[in-house]
Amino acid sequence: MTMRQLFLRASLTALALAAATPAQSTAQSLAERYRATTDRIIAAALSDSAAYARVALLTDKFGHRLSGSASLEQALDWIITEMTRDGLENVRGEPVMVPRWVRGRESATLVSPRRRELRMLGLGGSIATSARGITAPVVVVTSFDDLARKSAEARGKIVLFDVPFTNYGATVQYRSRGAVEAAKVGAVAVLIRSVASNSMQNPHTGAMRYDSTVKRIPAAALSVEDAMLLHRTYDRGERVVVTLRMEAKTHPDAPSRNVMGELRGRELPDEVVVLGGHIDSWDVGQGAMDDAGGSVAAWEVLRVLKRLGLQPRRTIRVVLWTNEENGLRGGTAYRDAHAAELSKHVLAMESDGGVFAPEGFSVDGSDEAVAVMRGLAPLLESIGATNIRAGGAGADVGPLTAAGVPGLGLQVDGTRYFWYHHSDADTMDKLDPREMAQCVAAMAVMAYVVADMPETLPRRAPR
Amino acid sequence: MTMRQLFLRASLTALALAAATPAQSTAQSLAERYRATTDRIIAAALSDSAAYARVALLTDKFGHRLSGSASLEQALDWIITEMTRDGLENVRGEPVMVPRWVRGRESATLVSPRRRELRMLGLGGSIATSARGITAPVVVVTSFDDLARKSAEARGKIVLFDVPFTNYGATVQYRSRGAVEAAKVGAVAVLIRSVASNSMQNPHTGAMRYDSTVKRIPAAALSVEDAMLLHRTYDRGERVVVTLRMEAKTHPDAPSRNVMGELRGRELPDEVVVLGGHIDSWDVGQGAMDDAGGSVAAWEVLRVLKRLGLQPRRTIRVVLWTNEENGLRGGTAYRDAHAAELSKHVLAMESDGGVFAPEGFSVDGSDEAVAVMRGLAPLLESIGATNIRAGGAGADVGPLTAAGVPGLGLQVDGTRYFWYHHSDADTMDKLDPREMAQCVAAMAVMAYVVADMPETLPRRAPR
Repeated sequence: MTMRQLFLRASLTALALAAATPAQSTAQSLAERYRATTDRIIAAALSDSAAYARVALLTDKFGHRLSGSASLEQALDWIITEMTRDGLENVRGEPVMVPRWVRGRESATLVSPRRRELRMLGLGGSIATSARGITAPVVVVTSFDDLARKSAEARGKIVLFDVPFTNYGATVQYRSRGAVEAAKVGAVAVLIRSVASNSMQNPHTGAMRYDSTVKRIPAAALSVEDAMLLHRTYDRGERVVVTLRMEAKTHPDAPSRNVMGELRGRELPDEVVVLGGHIDSWDVGQGAMDDAGGSVAAWEVLRVLKRLGLQPRRTIRVVLWTNEENGLRGGTAYRDAHAAELSKHVLAMESDGGVFAPEGFSVDGSDEAVAVMRGLAPLLESIGATNIRAGGAGADVGPLTAAGVPGLGLQVDGTRYFWYHHSDADTMDKLDPREMAQCVAAMAVMAYVVADMPETLPRRAPR
Repeated sequence: MTMRQLFLRASLTALALAAATPAQSTAQSLAERYRATTDRIIAAALSDSAAYARVALLTDKFGHRLSGSASLEQALDWIITEMTRDGLENVRGEPVMVPRWVRGRESATLVSPRRRELRMLGLGGSIATSARGITAPVVVVTSFDDLARKSAEARGKIVLFDVPFTNYGATVQYRSRGAVEAAKVGAVAVLIRSVASNSMQNPHTGAMRYDSTVKRIPAAALSVEDAMLLHRTYDRGERVVVTLRMEAKTHPDAPSRNVMGELRGRELPDEVVVLGGHIDSWDVGQGAMDDAGGSVAAWEVLRVLKRLGLQPRRTIRVVLWTNEENGLRGGTAYRDAHAAELSKHVLAMESDGGVFAPEGFSVDGSDEAVAVMRGLAPLLESIGATNIRAGGAGADVGPLTAAGVPGLGLQVDGTRYFWYHHSDADTMDKLDPREMAQCVAAMAVMAYVVADMPETLPRRAPR
């Protein structure tokens, strides 16, 4: 951040603080002006379960959709057809090159003190083992500090990070950095307890990374149950030996697309409210919750508005970003492809926490923008989504909010999200038609009002 | 039931009703007399997590324990050694011949409208398919009535019972009788939605049965998720085709044992309080909850009493019954082997609902016996296990209670029981050391007081 940016941000913050009350009161009168229309939007969104049925059809038909897979591209083709059939405008796929990591066959077998197949999933981005696998004793650690204490013992062994879930941000560190930290002390492979807040023997995958200065070692997640089994056995002083076999391979980048469609604005079509979710998923389950649900909910916003014959002042564009999971290439490519029109992006909204019962929105923007959004909260009272707080808006809109576009992230009841996340259990049945319709309603209200209101949301200086 | 039995039962019921208040007041004074001792028992049971550690060691060391398996018999050998080491008396294994059903390799593959492996488990007792499997269209039904409506469509097809869990007794009918009912209308195989109240892609097995008058067809459970996937696809009018392959085989009966040990009574050693759980399990997961936990909790009762130097008036015998899951041969063999001393069995107590937070006991006995047990409930106030109600006591004590022995079934918080039951997710980590110790305490209090009190519990006429 330059001195000029710092100065601008400080000035804007001062301005926002001074203006907080007027902005809020303006927003409140805004809310009153739009209430009749947004009540119609909510009623329409809740009148059927079309969004839910569409997620079911999409995920049943194509299954999971990892970057570089045929199923992802087939799903994108189908979405383009369906968006066109819905009558959306400017339906298109914008090209994005994405990483192509392929899992291959894989297994982890406990060979001592007794033989047993372990429930496992290789971590996304991991290298393979040799064809006959890696057989080595297991050292169980409960933190990076614990690894440091056992560094001598870990040399030449498989390190298992058996770390209970506290919160995602904290626990996911072992998935992301585990291979690097274990390799630093000479481990030959790394296992982690799946990053999950509940488990029924379903292992959870997700992205891991290497560091160019440290030897690459294979990395996999065990089910919570099997990690705990190995930990108990290790704590009894028994020799725990595992054979890990993985064929995982990173191929050259593959072509994919950000898919999008629009409801063109009636007065200021060049000004854009963008909203969406990511259409890629991990290569397990159906990626129904993460994030077909968010993608289709955003898409449904346009269908609901069209059905009501509502054409806002500005354009609303739905974007289904590709490759959020292991690259964020879609979010980045969108920003780059639309660099010239970013100043005309008035809002970037994302749903990537599951379309469970909506609670409100986090606002990634100036204090004044937060105040305006708070003023709109009463419009969402009937669906209980009135909690507006400052915070991040999501990974795919991150490149946009970093460029100063106000961001909005749908917040939902996340109780069960990390039960299913990145596992075989992320399937259609985990979603609820009524809750999903409420998410559509919440997003539709915010998108419509921000796209239609006379003023645009106050912007923040780029980061 | 003979006229004489009917007369006896009627007389006893009249007696019990007349005596209810005096019995209860006697029991209350009983409670006061024993409170100091039972408080010591509870404190001792809650003072460590020895029982939990023992279930963990047992299940980690031997894994699941299906009737006829080597792991069951190895576990029984180890238990006999450990019971002897604990200083229990008359430690022994009483021979029981048990069914030996072996799963073999198995799979269910969706082949149309797209290819995908389904999560499945063959049902216990099922026959195999041919080596190349059964490939047939799937007809989805939601009840036996729905099957009757679609009987013409079901001929030559695979029937899937996609029945949501309501309560175990109701839903398990599809697992038990599904193959017979589907075969009656000419189906070539049967699939069921797993009998489970929650799911993360873990299929649940369990016993099924054939009928000698109806053709035998292979039977398997799909995960809840995959059953719902097939159902959605079928409802869209798509042709759903599955290939089912199963090697399941029923071998000749194999030798097993009911394992038991005693704390001999100081005055009336021939009068017996028997308590236990079943040591066999299905061939998935660890059978930790169902029912290593109940088995070890019952065993721990004797260890706690011995540690406190408490020797009750009568004998307390712990029995780990074999083959509850697919035959009940253990419970039946115990009754037969002890036929001559059944009149001296003063109580038969069982834990087979998971050793979760205890809530109380169900009493399978006369109204007067229920009243006596209710009078003891205040002794369990500190652990919240005061809910005493009339009801079944458990499968393994069933042959004893049918013969007139008063039965007592530990009742626990069953919220999560059918999440894990008969699946790979029935593992050690689902239990809680504190809750399990509370179960030990509750069973120890009831076993001790009934074994020590001056009178025996009123009996009921045999059924």
